[in-house]
Amino acid sequence: MKKKHISNNVIRRLPKYLHIFDKLMANGIFRTSSYQISDLLGLTASQVRQDFNCFGAFGQQGYGYDVAALRAQIADILGMNRGYTAVLVGAGNIGHALIEDFNFSEWGVTLTRAFDGDPHISGKDICGIHVSPIEELPNYLRTNRPEIAVLALPKEAAKPSAELLIENGVKAIWNFTNEDLVEPENPVIVENIHFSDSLLALSYFVTAAMDSKKKK
Amino acid sequence: MKKKHISNNVIRRLPKYLHIFDKLMANGIFRTSSYQISDLLGLTASQVRQDFNCFGAFGQQGYGYDVAALRAQIADILGMNRGYTAVLVGAGNIGHALIEDFNFSEWGVTLTRAFDGDPHISGKDICGIHVSPIEELPNYLRTNRPEIAVLALPKEAAKPSAELLIENGVKAIWNFTNEDLVEPENPVIVENIHFSDSLLALSYFVTAAMDSKKKK
Repeated sequence: MKKKHISNNVIRRLPKYLHIFDKLMANGIFRTSSYQISDLLGLTASQVRQDFNCFGAFGQQGYGYDVAALRAQIADILGMNRGYTAVLVGAGNIGHALIEDFNFSEWGVTLTRAFDGDPHISGKDICGIHVSPIEELPNYLRTNRPEIAVLALPKEAAKPSAELLIENGVKAIWNFTNEDLVEPENPVIVENIHFSDSLLALSYFVTAAMDSKKKK
Repeated sequence: MKKKHISNNVIRRLPKYLHIFDKLMANGIFRTSSYQISDLLGLTASQVRQDFNCFGAFGQQGYGYDVAALRAQIADILGMNRGYTAVLVGAGNIGHALIEDFNFSEWGVTLTRAFDGDPHISGKDICGIHVSPIEELPNYLRTNRPEIAVLALPKEAAKPSAELLIENGVKAIWNFTNEDLVEPENPVIVENIHFSDSLLALSYFVTAAMDSKKKK
């Protein structure tokens, strides 16, 4: 596969394309065009074609794209077939919600174990995922080498826990702590779920819409 | 205040600036420069100055920016002082986690009430927030006019619930359902928390890092 440098904006659109292809196939549509895709995503068709060029997928004039083939290519680029495993660190409210409501395996990731410091939580199973005492985490990481740690601890525990994860070979942290973990000397991949940033953006859009109405 | 068109990328950086300013002030730093800010955020100083120009904040050569004044300006742009209220629709795992762990008021939003369809959940209070039966939602919305609805229902309930919210005057939906609600004819502001997109981006970065190591 031809691979160019893929910009962050394109990377962020890849999951959107994946969802669109899944929807098209669920509706029995197996051929698509850059126009159809752009329409579904609110992009321009030329933008869609540029994105696809980034990873070497070319449709044929008047014939379009094979949805299943595109889907497979994007899944491949996203690493969905690499068999990544993940541990959950913190099985409180958010962690619990992730185990119960979020389907890791749908996205190619296997959640193998959860860890919690609360003895009322550890020792139990949640939806088939065993929760171990947090003390067992370092040994588990060294033995099982999961690529991903889902960090769902309170904010104040974020930094020391991240250090422990990095020391024990975790490659990426999916960060639900609302604490920023990106530091220049940090060798690990951090993907943040910042609830506050999202709510603030929403608040911005509400404000902008209200102010523009007032002007009219 | 001078207001230009603010691009989505700038809007997404505004909360980051806010967090930086809060951290600086917590550390007793009340004057800052575009260099210091850019360093903390991993941007260029020129990018930071461009962003600030968007909303008419100008530092003085050799003197820099007043952190508290910048913070106040950004909070204002983000609508944090507008007194927005929100209702939570769905008090299951995610909804429960938001009530217990997420501090709405820190971001200028007051969560006034939760709603759930499960009679085992409704009727109770969670951390001071009353959970009402979902049947009472339309009447509550028409009477109390909250600007924001936090939608934390299962995926399959997303679209009909969004319609009900829009019909009853909600201006913005903070969408935790993992179902896309953006539709061309949709008059409401939708801000999505897409867990899967975030995990897939993380998976992409892990894959890219591994593949680049292999090549070396």
